[in-house]
Amino acid sequence: MNYKLVLVRHGESEWNQKNLFTGWTDVDLSEKGHLEAMQGGKALKEEGFSFDVCYTSVLKRAIHTANHVLAQLDEEWIPVIKSYKLNERHYGALQGLNKAETAAKYGEEQVKIWRRSFDVRPPALMPDDDRNPALQKMYANIDSTELPLTESLKDTIARVIPYFEQVIKKDILANKSVLIVAHGNSLRALFKYLNDISDEAIINVNIPTGVPLVMELNENLKAVSHRYLGDPEEIQAKMDAAKNQGKK
Amino acid sequence: MNYKLVLVRHGESEWNQKNLFTGWTDVDLSEKGHLEAMQGGKALKEEGFSFDVCYTSVLKRAIHTANHVLAQLDEEWIPVIKSYKLNERHYGALQGLNKAETAAKYGEEQVKIWRRSFDVRPPALMPDDDRNPALQKMYANIDSTELPLTESLKDTIARVIPYFEQVIKKDILANKSVLIVAHGNSLRALFKYLNDISDEAIINVNIPTGVPLVMELNENLKAVSHRYLGDPEEIQAKMDAAKNQGKK
Repeated sequence: MNYKLVLVRHGESEWNQKNLFTGWTDVDLSEKGHLEAMQGGKALKEEGFSFDVCYTSVLKRAIHTANHVLAQLDEEWIPVIKSYKLNERHYGALQGLNKAETAAKYGEEQVKIWRRSFDVRPPALMPDDDRNPALQKMYANIDSTELPLTESLKDTIARVIPYFEQVIKKDILANKSVLIVAHGNSLRALFKYLNDISDEAIINVNIPTGVPLVMELNENLKAVSHRYLGDPEEIQAKMDAAKNQGKK
Repeated sequence: MNYKLVLVRHGESEWNQKNLFTGWTDVDLSEKGHLEAMQGGKALKEEGFSFDVCYTSVLKRAIHTANHVLAQLDEEWIPVIKSYKLNERHYGALQGLNKAETAAKYGEEQVKIWRRSFDVRPPALMPDDDRNPALQKMYANIDSTELPLTESLKDTIARVIPYFEQVIKKDILANKSVLIVAHGNSLRALFKYLNDISDEAIINVNIPTGVPLVMELNENLKAVSHRYLGDPEEIQAKMDAAKNQGKK
């Protein structure tokens, strides 16, 4: 018997729009992002999807996206479980910098390495930096040794996959219909794991914003197929846009 | 040492506005209701309130109110636990009927008895009625013998208080700052319990919509004081409005 799992990347955020490195900065959806999230919910509704539980990060752009999707489905009453384990990759000291300006300063190649290499971390935050998660109320209950000052994609994977295996998996195996609303890199981590994609290949996978990604999983919870719900041309344009953000 | 607990009744709903008996009908907030909820959140923010956990019902007018309040506080990342145990009193076969028309048909006295007596139930739904919660996906995981076809205030209390004692209480005793966003009668049930109000007196307690009610509790979790956050005249006007809904 096969299982189904639906992933949704949050809609465009205010900082996506401004082309800033966001990471764990808790910025809201842009107006376009709200619409994308609603559209994602509508696409799921049109195909008759229904969920038993929703997992999301503690960042409001993901929470608001989840709220929009569930509102469209009239399923806001289901449990919505929020965990920092599903947060975006932490972008270290790049958080708040403009992607194009950073490219002009450090070179496109260096920015590409920070954005698209598997195990290179951007410069870390200083521990006394206000942006250090260990100094924020939101993460006050988390052991500070677990909280990053910067992350490579590899680090993000090492955070997301144990959470999937220890928490989300049991719901899928119990035949619950699971929705995960998260971020470009936390979803990339999941997508890599479910599809056994290599470290080299995953950096070229760009999950478009607000477009439901329906995964069919076998009994070992490995993907046997996946498809996006929506207009193929629109989806391709979104993937290309994500890829080009780091250019000058 | 004293504990603090904050209760918020959801903002005006689309059916409050139309003067219909609502109960477990899952109607949304009216435009005014959305504003009331935001205002409640702002009042809490102005006084520096902050929460660790939020409890609400599975009905969207309460969930949306909780979302507005937490958005104002920038605390949408806290756990929001939804339970039908905090739902509004079930209004049986009256759900969907106009309060004034029902008064004209059955007499103001009968409607007053249904609305304001302690242990009289409105006419029950037939089990095959679409409005029977046991037939709805939302309650599919609940033992159908626990789901009402009608409720008196006494019945609502018998549903809300064990949930408070078995689930919410441990968070308060663990010194978590708890927010409960619920409904006129589920909050009345809590208010009666926390203040040891008599069966006769509770029917005259009207909790205004969207106004945070701050309770200070002693070590036995009994109220030593309570106060509303907001303009006293506005609050009194809201209480009077609630009282007059059942009139022709």
